[in-house]
Amino acid sequence: MRSILAYLQQHEARNVEELLTLLRFPTISADPRHEMDMLACAQYLRDWLAARGFSAELLPTGGHPAVYAEWLAAPGAPTVLSYGHYDVQPVDPLELWNSPPFSPMIRDGCVYARGADDDKGQFLTHLLAAQAHLEVRGRLPVNLKIILEGEEEIGSVHLPETLQKNRDKLAADVAVISDSGQLAAGRPTLCYGLRGLLYFQVKVSGPSHDLHSGEYGGAVANPVNVLCGMIGRLQDADGRITIPGFYDRVRPMEAWERELLDRLGYGPEEVRRLTGVPELPAGGRRHPAEATWFLPSLDCNGIVGGYTGAGAKTVLPAEASAKISMRLVPDQDPKEISAAFVAWLKELAPPSVRLELQQLSCAGPILVPSQGRWMEAARAALKMTFNRDPLLVRMGGSIPIVLDIAETLGLESLLLGWGLPDDCLHAPNEKFDLAQFHAGTRAMAQLYDQLATA
Amino acid sequence: MRSILAYLQQHEARNVEELLTLLRFPTISADPRHEMDMLACAQYLRDWLAARGFSAELLPTGGHPAVYAEWLAAPGAPTVLSYGHYDVQPVDPLELWNSPPFSPMIRDGCVYARGADDDKGQFLTHLLAAQAHLEVRGRLPVNLKIILEGEEEIGSVHLPETLQKNRDKLAADVAVISDSGQLAAGRPTLCYGLRGLLYFQVKVSGPSHDLHSGEYGGAVANPVNVLCGMIGRLQDADGRITIPGFYDRVRPMEAWERELLDRLGYGPEEVRRLTGVPELPAGGRRHPAEATWFLPSLDCNGIVGGYTGAGAKTVLPAEASAKISMRLVPDQDPKEISAAFVAWLKELAPPSVRLELQQLSCAGPILVPSQGRWMEAARAALKMTFNRDPLLVRMGGSIPIVLDIAETLGLESLLLGWGLPDDCLHAPNEKFDLAQFHAGTRAMAQLYDQLATA
Repeated sequence: MRSILAYLQQHEARNVEELLTLLRFPTISADPRHEMDMLACAQYLRDWLAARGFSAELLPTGGHPAVYAEWLAAPGAPTVLSYGHYDVQPVDPLELWNSPPFSPMIRDGCVYARGADDDKGQFLTHLLAAQAHLEVRGRLPVNLKIILEGEEEIGSVHLPETLQKNRDKLAADVAVISDSGQLAAGRPTLCYGLRGLLYFQVKVSGPSHDLHSGEYGGAVANPVNVLCGMIGRLQDADGRITIPGFYDRVRPMEAWERELLDRLGYGPEEVRRLTGVPELPAGGRRHPAEATWFLPSLDCNGIVGGYTGAGAKTVLPAEASAKISMRLVPDQDPKEISAAFVAWLKELAPPSVRLELQQLSCAGPILVPSQGRWMEAARAALKMTFNRDPLLVRMGGSIPIVLDIAETLGLESLLLGWGLPDDCLHAPNEKFDLAQFHAGTRAMAQLYDQLATA
Repeated sequence: MRSILAYLQQHEARNVEELLTLLRFPTISADPRHEMDMLACAQYLRDWLAARGFSAELLPTGGHPAVYAEWLAAPGAPTVLSYGHYDVQPVDPLELWNSPPFSPMIRDGCVYARGADDDKGQFLTHLLAAQAHLEVRGRLPVNLKIILEGEEEIGSVHLPETLQKNRDKLAADVAVISDSGQLAAGRPTLCYGLRGLLYFQVKVSGPSHDLHSGEYGGAVANPVNVLCGMIGRLQDADGRITIPGFYDRVRPMEAWERELLDRLGYGPEEVRRLTGVPELPAGGRRHPAEATWFLPSLDCNGIVGGYTGAGAKTVLPAEASAKISMRLVPDQDPKEISAAFVAWLKELAPPSVRLELQQLSCAGPILVPSQGRWMEAARAALKMTFNRDPLLVRMGGSIPIVLDIAETLGLESLLLGWGLPDDCLHAPNEKFDLAQFHAGTRAMAQLYDQLATA
């Protein structure tokens, strides 16, 4: 292992170049104009893996293709399935970026680009660690299958079907996913729970065209007012979500989980500092990790209607649209909550408007085992790399594939990543700390060894 | 008068050309990029009036200039102040226009362009009627002063000061304004009341940058959710505005005013047909004219926040903005309501967000006398033109200058116009009926005569 770690240290500059190359692909899966960029990036990754000894191909999905690669020359050793996603979030508001999102720039030891952390920089550590094993030892200690998805940021719409179709090809002993992060630099972190995601596009319309707000204001329902009222009524004054039955299946936090919160070493003040908000809801009386790990949430991710240019336009808009998402926790059932949300919105909509709903994502929450041989292997690899016992956490985000991997492939997932809380995921000026990038690559090299003997 | 009417009939084609020329100026006062177009249109109007015998000039206002012209060679006759505005509303959503908004097109006897009705087509009837008098008789029967404003659609921000500064120049006996409309083609209409307008830009912000809605959803207040909740709470379930004291000074409808509604010959069904809404609020139990003439309203004219592109982006937005306006009725005091609105919004905003407010318009409601010698002159001119007694109405819209004319110049205003309810004011595909345009020009020619002997 020492020679592999030495190899990685010698090749840090090259590995950074590999990352920059990957970040230059504008792989926004949500935007149809980037369809060819998606394909180009997938082809690039396939060819990169093939050139390093993997058998590699594109898997058609019906949407953006997935990249699949395998190296299976370790008979008797466990088979590891590595998952990552090469698609990224949209970049608006573009004007808030300090450098162009697809022209990666290195400043103060961090690389700034869309996808730097989420997830290109992270999954690349799996690939570079494998390359190090192959170059130094000529072999991997485990059989390695790699799947790189192109639709994670749009709800992994085609992934369940793709996994189902390729069940035999993807068969493995354990999955490893780096799409989460660490609580702080040098504090290795293992994740055992994720929230699910429901995402809806909601449109409220009324008049067939924009009206003069003087001529009709008060006589005709205003779709913006109505939509705001509906969204406002989705939560009560305490922020509790009002959808009937919403909390029925929420699993209460257990005593050992509350202790995890106490060990985190951060709380409301840290979240205020990281986010810049003037105050936390309810005066910050609830631990922020309780809110994001153990409770569901409802967020309007975007809204638009009427005149949004400069100055005043006295229009009564014909329609208004919003994107509304919910993060679900165990044991909420996404289909059940989806139906309850739709029914509730229909009830909140007055007959003076038309309501249109479109579901864009539907993924359940998941818990993975917090102990067992794979977890112990991960703990060992992280401790060897960071000289510190990893923290056990849940995550507020969603990685839909984790549930699919569990249900379709019957695999436990190890969720460990190298991102930091101030990496601005999904926001302007996303970054990835290069020290974390290199440490993550070393940790992955250790992990392949640890899994081989687990 | 017969020869003047004959002259107008002979010159209908030329008059339409004059209208088209005027409509080609993209005079969007709200958009700073059109500053030079505003000036060009003002200069064009000044020169047009000067060429026809008026003494004409531009009045600096601090913003877009006003055009002022006068013809004062009728000693002993009353002096009439004609008001119009050459600025127009913005054009978005541009994609809903069937032809470009500043390339006027004639279809089915109507001209389609931004400003066709509001207000270029309307004030042009005052000018063309005066031209007819001057060409046929060599003189006008009254002294005529014309002021054409460039900031009506942005709340007439500099007009009060401009009137104050030019009080002597603008002194007159009565004002005439065509910025209202008729209830239907061939149904002449006189307006005796207008609503006032308060217009605010509201911004709610929280995090210093967009956050990942998984990582922070539930732990941090979402500015879009908060703004929607605040807007939702500005009205109760019946649409009643919740600002404390908002209705205190609303003058109840009098018995003779309720009779006006009964004589209108239209009601909820007509409004549904004209606007295309599925149903009126409260099932249409209230007459729509009661709602827009006698009651105040509150409309969100635009809202934007977060991700509004295609597909899903799981962002917790850093901020959200809305434009919120209120139409006020007699005897609501705009400054009092403005203060109450600001205080109420501050109360509705939780400490987890920052609130910024900017007032863009503040104009009071007004009633003008519904009888008297000027009103009788207007009734006579309308009856001679349309062979029908004019209807007496109020209007839901606002013409801020009417109050300023009353308060600063001490003048009563005659509010009579030629627009029709389906002219799509402030909306895509604004139009003006050319038969109304020509009838309006004839009515104005009659009105100058009637006012001369009133």
